[in-house]
Amino acid sequence: MNAPIRVAIVGYGNLGRGVELALRQNSDMTLAAFFTRREPSSLKTLSPAIPVYSIHDILQHKEELDVLILCGGSATDLPKQSPHLAEHFTIVDSFDNHSRIPSHFDACDAAARQGGHIALLSVGWDPGLFSLLRLLGNCVLPCGQDYTFWGKGVSQGHSDAIRRVEGVLDGKQYTVPVPEALERVRSGENPVLTTREKHTRECYVVAAPDADKAKIEREIQTMPAYFADYDTTVHFITKEELDRDHRGIPHGGFVLRSGTTGEQQETKQMMEFSLKLGSNPEFTASVLVSCARAAVRLSREGQTGAKTILDIPPAYLSPQSGEELRRTLL
Amino acid sequence: MNAPIRVAIVGYGNLGRGVELALRQNSDMTLAAFFTRREPSSLKTLSPAIPVYSIHDILQHKEELDVLILCGGSATDLPKQSPHLAEHFTIVDSFDNHSRIPSHFDACDAAARQGGHIALLSVGWDPGLFSLLRLLGNCVLPCGQDYTFWGKGVSQGHSDAIRRVEGVLDGKQYTVPVPEALERVRSGENPVLTTREKHTRECYVVAAPDADKAKIEREIQTMPAYFADYDTTVHFITKEELDRDHRGIPHGGFVLRSGTTGEQQETKQMMEFSLKLGSNPEFTASVLVSCARAAVRLSREGQTGAKTILDIPPAYLSPQSGEELRRTLL
Repeated sequence: MNAPIRVAIVGYGNLGRGVELALRQNSDMTLAAFFTRREPSSLKTLSPAIPVYSIHDILQHKEELDVLILCGGSATDLPKQSPHLAEHFTIVDSFDNHSRIPSHFDACDAAARQGGHIALLSVGWDPGLFSLLRLLGNCVLPCGQDYTFWGKGVSQGHSDAIRRVEGVLDGKQYTVPVPEALERVRSGENPVLTTREKHTRECYVVAAPDADKAKIEREIQTMPAYFADYDTTVHFITKEELDRDHRGIPHGGFVLRSGTTGEQQETKQMMEFSLKLGSNPEFTASVLVSCARAAVRLSREGQTGAKTILDIPPAYLSPQSGEELRRTLL
Repeated sequence: MNAPIRVAIVGYGNLGRGVELALRQNSDMTLAAFFTRREPSSLKTLSPAIPVYSIHDILQHKEELDVLILCGGSATDLPKQSPHLAEHFTIVDSFDNHSRIPSHFDACDAAARQGGHIALLSVGWDPGLFSLLRLLGNCVLPCGQDYTFWGKGVSQGHSDAIRRVEGVLDGKQYTVPVPEALERVRSGENPVLTTREKHTRECYVVAAPDADKAKIEREIQTMPAYFADYDTTVHFITKEELDRDHRGIPHGGFVLRSGTTGEQQETKQMMEFSLKLGSNPEFTASVLVSCARAAVRLSREGQTGAKTILDIPPAYLSPQSGEELRRTLL
């Protein structure tokens, strides 16, 4: 039995807490430290025995750690942290700004090669597992069409946008796939779907007592980029209802590949992958933890540079040996 | 642009024909030859320009081929062919006798290492894509339960069993997942399901004019190993109906991972993968072809020995570069 993989969590929000909990489900890994930008003594984790250090001191702990799981945000944290830390550590992040993945990858690749480490990037479910399933669909059914639907789930960005509307005290937004669109895809019809046809948006809003609700509704429904291209429903509820019924952070979605085979492309073939997640950050954290195991293995093999989930032999995600996997799972 | 990968098809039944068609969808690969145990001139393929050779002469063609796709059966063909040919060629097979995979793997591994080749084994959808999804489920949600359902689809083995019953002229058997069982799994209930609760079996039977139909029905429904443990329905139809309505070889199925996360395992997380296949052999063939590409890449890197889909970096299945994949699919 090898010594457990020593993991540090960098950044302690919902995702960091999810990683903390996911590590408890993986006996070949151990939580070695937290790193935070806050005053370390102010951080209340679920693991009081595990030390909390300032992010500024992280280079002093190189010898005690096998891998860092970076749990910061993609907007401002990871674009700086990932390349910086990849020079000194094996890292895993969940960078999810799709359009900026290529430049993030290149920056981390250079740093990781420089330092002789592995940087496993953009891990989670989209990008992540959904990317892997899109890849499988494209490879197995080259003549076909990809479809990705998200939800039903909470969009943090859209919830934030609602809360910025005047007269709104609090609010939450759910992205919902349109069942009819999903059924048309499943039928093998290969429809061309507009943004409006694929998803609806449902908003639960707590308005200030004196607020103009009609105005709030109009302002949300016409908000460019966020809501204007969708059929958006606004429900006004009380703060108590919001806290009682909309506390969770569920999410999920569907990746479909609708393809054809045969001499005249006469045979319909359908692949579908879906997730129904009680907690988006806890699930993303679980993906990150299995990928941290893979990153350490690649690193111990002497590989270096940036990788994504598309580059990882799937068996590396597992604590079981190849022999066990062939006997039990294949 | 590299020269196309030169592929040979070994064995020309439904699966071989599927590979022949799938190669037409992949412009980076080219069909170089067929090999058969039959008299080569008797083989009528869909590609008259491609040479057909006797399997006995295959070693004479080592320099013309990059990879062999073995399309024989798992009962008697592949246990001999795969280890024999792995010593001389990069090979891909779809060996699907789950309990014998470990010994098949070991035999091919020794031969492939001996010859300095790659043998990518047990490729298809189960084993194959379903194995990969079971692995992902187990790695991402270590606290959870696996469920695999097959169908609705034609089982060749069970169709053969029906046709051996006295008084039966022809017949076809469909394996059907029980919708209620699937829904119980999807609900996160984690039920313990018996064989009978998971699948039903539907038989379409053409009886001889003078046959005792009640006896046929009884004999099928009580047949040990094949039908006795299932709720089996027998439909008597005419030969014309069988040929008209049951000509295809559809199949499919579901892999689900129902897991929990959170401090008290209070969060339900569900992963589901499903296939709805118009043609089982054409889809299996499509998986084999993308895996042949990966096998050649591994081989060109200098790797040797037996592998399964669990050992392949998914990007190797694709003709696109890592950069393209990150930009378009991640």
